[in-house]
Amino acid sequence: MLLGSIEAGGTKFVCAVGDQNYQVKQSVTFPTTDPATTIQKSIEFFQQFSNLSAIGIASFGPIEIRRSAPNYGFVTSTPKPGWKDIDFVGPIQQALNVPVYWTTDVNGSAYGEWVAYQQAGQALDSLVYYTVGTGIGAGIVNDGHFIGSQGHPELGHVYVKRHPNDADFTGICPFHNDCLEGLASGPTFKARLGIAGQNVPLSNPTWDIIAYYVAQALIQTTLAFRPAKIIIGGGVSSESFLKKVRQQFKELLNDYIEVGRLEDYIVMPKVANNGSATLGDFALAAKELENNY
Amino acid sequence: MLLGSIEAGGTKFVCAVGDQNYQVKQSVTFPTTDPATTIQKSIEFFQQFSNLSAIGIASFGPIEIRRSAPNYGFVTSTPKPGWKDIDFVGPIQQALNVPVYWTTDVNGSAYGEWVAYQQAGQALDSLVYYTVGTGIGAGIVNDGHFIGSQGHPELGHVYVKRHPNDADFTGICPFHNDCLEGLASGPTFKARLGIAGQNVPLSNPTWDIIAYYVAQALIQTTLAFRPAKIIIGGGVSSESFLKKVRQQFKELLNDYIEVGRLEDYIVMPKVANNGSATLGDFALAAKELENNY
Repeated sequence: MLLGSIEAGGTKFVCAVGDQNYQVKQSVTFPTTDPATTIQKSIEFFQQFSNLSAIGIASFGPIEIRRSAPNYGFVTSTPKPGWKDIDFVGPIQQALNVPVYWTTDVNGSAYGEWVAYQQAGQALDSLVYYTVGTGIGAGIVNDGHFIGSQGHPELGHVYVKRHPNDADFTGICPFHNDCLEGLASGPTFKARLGIAGQNVPLSNPTWDIIAYYVAQALIQTTLAFRPAKIIIGGGVSSESFLKKVRQQFKELLNDYIEVGRLEDYIVMPKVANNGSATLGDFALAAKELENNY
Repeated sequence: MLLGSIEAGGTKFVCAVGDQNYQVKQSVTFPTTDPATTIQKSIEFFQQFSNLSAIGIASFGPIEIRRSAPNYGFVTSTPKPGWKDIDFVGPIQQALNVPVYWTTDVNGSAYGEWVAYQQAGQALDSLVYYTVGTGIGAGIVNDGHFIGSQGHPELGHVYVKRHPNDADFTGICPFHNDCLEGLASGPTFKARLGIAGQNVPLSNPTWDIIAYYVAQALIQTTLAFRPAKIIIGGGVSSESFLKKVRQQFKELLNDYIEVGRLEDYIVMPKVANNGSATLGDFALAAKELENNY
């Protein structure tokens, strides 16, 4: 028996098959182009395996996750050209004829981290997973279940208090200008400094500004969900960046509630090499399979 | 059989007994003074009723809600003089010897609204209840359960984007200065204008500033929980105020996700005369009783 995973990002797709212990057996990565081509490539990858039992898909979005909705399984109002209102689950299920679990990219990663902590004998009762990269989003697992029944969280688009040294930046979110994603996603480095984030040294104060906004997002989810742990993935995240985030978080929370040691509370992903979503997808595929029998 | 309710506010206590249909049979209101006196008064009210079966308590906080904690049932880090680290559930349970359900004031109200919609044949799968009054807080019910296992939400203390015409106000939260509560709670009217909120006409632009902050809080919980409904109680709330909030919410969300008609989404409490918490307490008392048998 093999389990399948599609990590469908706005830039690239990662398709993988794994065994019952969620060990990756084979994987392929290709750029996200138009929907027909990209979905067909995914199908062809999985058609190599006759013993594929189920697939988990963690997709960029927004997506429709309510199974009762007529457009369940669609990518919906994404600004990504060509992908608005595209049926994703339909063609996959039709071509491969296996159960599919469909969720957001960040939910997939959140679930992968949930499983990784369980596998390590450190099971958590709840966690929040943020990605801070091209965009910002969060997935939340509480007692094994995702938060969000009417729809998935969209925590990149909340508003935050402006950093005093960032007052003139208008923000880059096409919907909201200066929401969290508009102020703190990776591309804001280029918008502010004319240089891509990966080339901006950590000593540049823009990193402190970004950390200030990310810390406020973590305050929000801390006060809303009281999670056991917050995990920060995505291209902007690093152990050095998280040091800055923890420091700002500490000042902003001002010991109002107890969250334990910040080094244990705000952390990098446990799964190495951006593998959280693939692990999560395998586990969600296995869950879907179980629910189908 | 009678069910009991204590709505323990920072200013006043409302104790009530109700029947199995959650109809109030008798109630009493008295000011919140020192803990010993106030808790004793509550006990004496309930001692009149020999057929009391269980009590629900909805308390100001922060409070300890984890049943495994050594200080379960305590009011914990409240700034309210005399009430820090006070055992509330212990003396009630000892004197009255009935099962007690213990939660926050806003959780009690949230649960009461949940029950009221059920009773009206309009059951919701999830709701958020905000109080905007002396303080700001929120309770969240999802599929009949409260959000927050490590502790209860503290959604009054998130940070928000500053209104351009409010840039110089420092905020009044003793912990965070300009968090949501520090910028938008009832007492901020007096801090800004020297006049109590109830005497400030709705035409005063301070109302728009407060509505702008409350709308941002609603954006946060909308994007985090995707609830079916958001209910706003507390002394600052009114149908006219909510008109302003809806308008700001619409502009800030900019149709990013679908929440339905705003007049149905952002609403005043369904239970009349601030009765949400009492109704919720009765229902939670009944639930506790059921779990004890």
